[in-house]
Amino acid sequence: VDADPSRIVVCGGVAEVLALVARVLRARGARRLGVENPSHRSTRGLLAHHGMDVVAIEVDEHGIDVDALAAAAPDAVLVTPAHQFPTGVVLSAGRRAELAAWVRRTGAYVIEDDYDAEYRYDRLPIGAVQGLAPEHVIHAHSVSKTLAPGLRLGWAVLPSHLAAEVAAEKALSDLGTPVLEQLTLAAFLARGELDRHLRQTRPLYRRRRDALLHGLPGLPAAGAAAGLHALVGLPPGSDESQVAAAAATNEVAVEPLGPHDMTGDHEPALILGYSRLSEPALIEAAKRLRAALAG
Amino acid sequence: VDADPSRIVVCGGVAEVLALVARVLRARGARRLGVENPSHRSTRGLLAHHGMDVVAIEVDEHGIDVDALAAAAPDAVLVTPAHQFPTGVVLSAGRRAELAAWVRRTGAYVIEDDYDAEYRYDRLPIGAVQGLAPEHVIHAHSVSKTLAPGLRLGWAVLPSHLAAEVAAEKALSDLGTPVLEQLTLAAFLARGELDRHLRQTRPLYRRRRDALLHGLPGLPAAGAAAGLHALVGLPPGSDESQVAAAAATNEVAVEPLGPHDMTGDHEPALILGYSRLSEPALIEAAKRLRAALAG
Repeated sequence: VDADPSRIVVCGGVAEVLALVARVLRARGARRLGVENPSHRSTRGLLAHHGMDVVAIEVDEHGIDVDALAAAAPDAVLVTPAHQFPTGVVLSAGRRAELAAWVRRTGAYVIEDDYDAEYRYDRLPIGAVQGLAPEHVIHAHSVSKTLAPGLRLGWAVLPSHLAAEVAAEKALSDLGTPVLEQLTLAAFLARGELDRHLRQTRPLYRRRRDALLHGLPGLPAAGAAAGLHALVGLPPGSDESQVAAAAATNEVAVEPLGPHDMTGDHEPALILGYSRLSEPALIEAAKRLRAALAG
Repeated sequence: VDADPSRIVVCGGVAEVLALVARVLRARGARRLGVENPSHRSTRGLLAHHGMDVVAIEVDEHGIDVDALAAAAPDAVLVTPAHQFPTGVVLSAGRRAELAAWVRRTGAYVIEDDYDAEYRYDRLPIGAVQGLAPEHVIHAHSVSKTLAPGLRLGWAVLPSHLAAEVAAEKALSDLGTPVLEQLTLAAFLARGELDRHLRQTRPLYRRRRDALLHGLPGLPAAGAAAGLHALVGLPPGSDESQVAAAAATNEVAVEPLGPHDMTGDHEPALILGYSRLSEPALIEAAKRLRAALAG
């Protein structure tokens, strides 16, 4: 990420970046915003609330389909290149180049939600798309996944011509983000504590991911070994909502893919979060989930 | 203040309350928002940015003119009843009753900015207008004046029928306010620390106010002995902007009343903040301000 301070607006997390940017882009005349399909339902609701017409662009095993994006021709597109939510797909090098070429050619914007990029378990984290086209990419990140969502601390790295407008929108929304967390994070970073924390938590979350997935033989996990969730496919013909409901009666919270799919055309699958449970708890959860699937 | 928790939305201060409420009221069809004249220029800019047409309602020695308000018939009105900004006038008991009767009669809303209500030096702080008509008053308050503006911690107490909409607007804007400050403030309040802090700071700020004003003989301060600023009248014919500029060259920062007056029809006056300077520094500042006025 090109982190020239004049391009950065500090705010309360990726959701706030999206709200501010949606309002700024709308004031500049943008209306149509491409989103990956599937993608987070709440995020689409937030964008629509702030005036965007949301257009679904399909995701395949290489990430967002840039040909489909070019055909839909929205004013901007929201992507999760490091680890697509919820499929877990990493945007391929070819697609990254296509996406950067598309924004340069059209003047559209990419909004890059880099929500869990630090957590890659199979290789080094991949670079941000922002670096390929810094004048066309709005990069959004936060400490919600690395430290704690309750801190509500994130930031946008913006094209230089948008930075002042987004900063003004932020100032007109709440005068600014609390300073204590910002100063604390700055000291934390300067002392190398975030790197230390990531070195501790990467293997921890990887073991948790492995414990969960090893407990679910025959249920393939989509995408890369990364992040804090996995999308697992269910046997053909399964009712994902019914399985989720059955698991819930046994105190296992999982989410069906359905609500995140705008077209409804997908194989049955569940989204499983594993970051907050110990390995034994995840092994037990996998067991209960298998029972829910069998029942 | 009627503080039923279901009516409260925690946010980043009064500015955020105003931004959220402006967007919610606009979505409900409101457009015209009365504001006191004079009133804070930045606040009017924020309200206009979020879609409100701002209408000036004059303030006299009893506070906002409720007859003028009724004649203008806006959808809502923003007031500073405890200590009008910048005149320092306290809304009289009669006007409070008229204001409450007006909202009950018309279905309009009062937005009560209670920004420095804790700092009354001549008598006990007056009750909020919210208590007179809780289903018609949006009460906004924060710890910016009592503790520190950098905490960015405030709240709205809302009519029950608006609380869910404002909470949703908040969630759709940034998912919520940081939790550390909230938990810390709750502990601080539970231990009686805020009361203790106010008992310490009330006499401190009062002495600072007195030091400043005693250093400015012949320049009358408007309004009540309250808050963290005073509006002082200049001799007739003075150029308030010129005096402020002259003071600035001598490292004394004061603000002319002009930018806060929507109609431009006022006697020359300066807004002086005294909360952050020691008594000796305020005595020196008063001396330099007199020199600026004489020059």
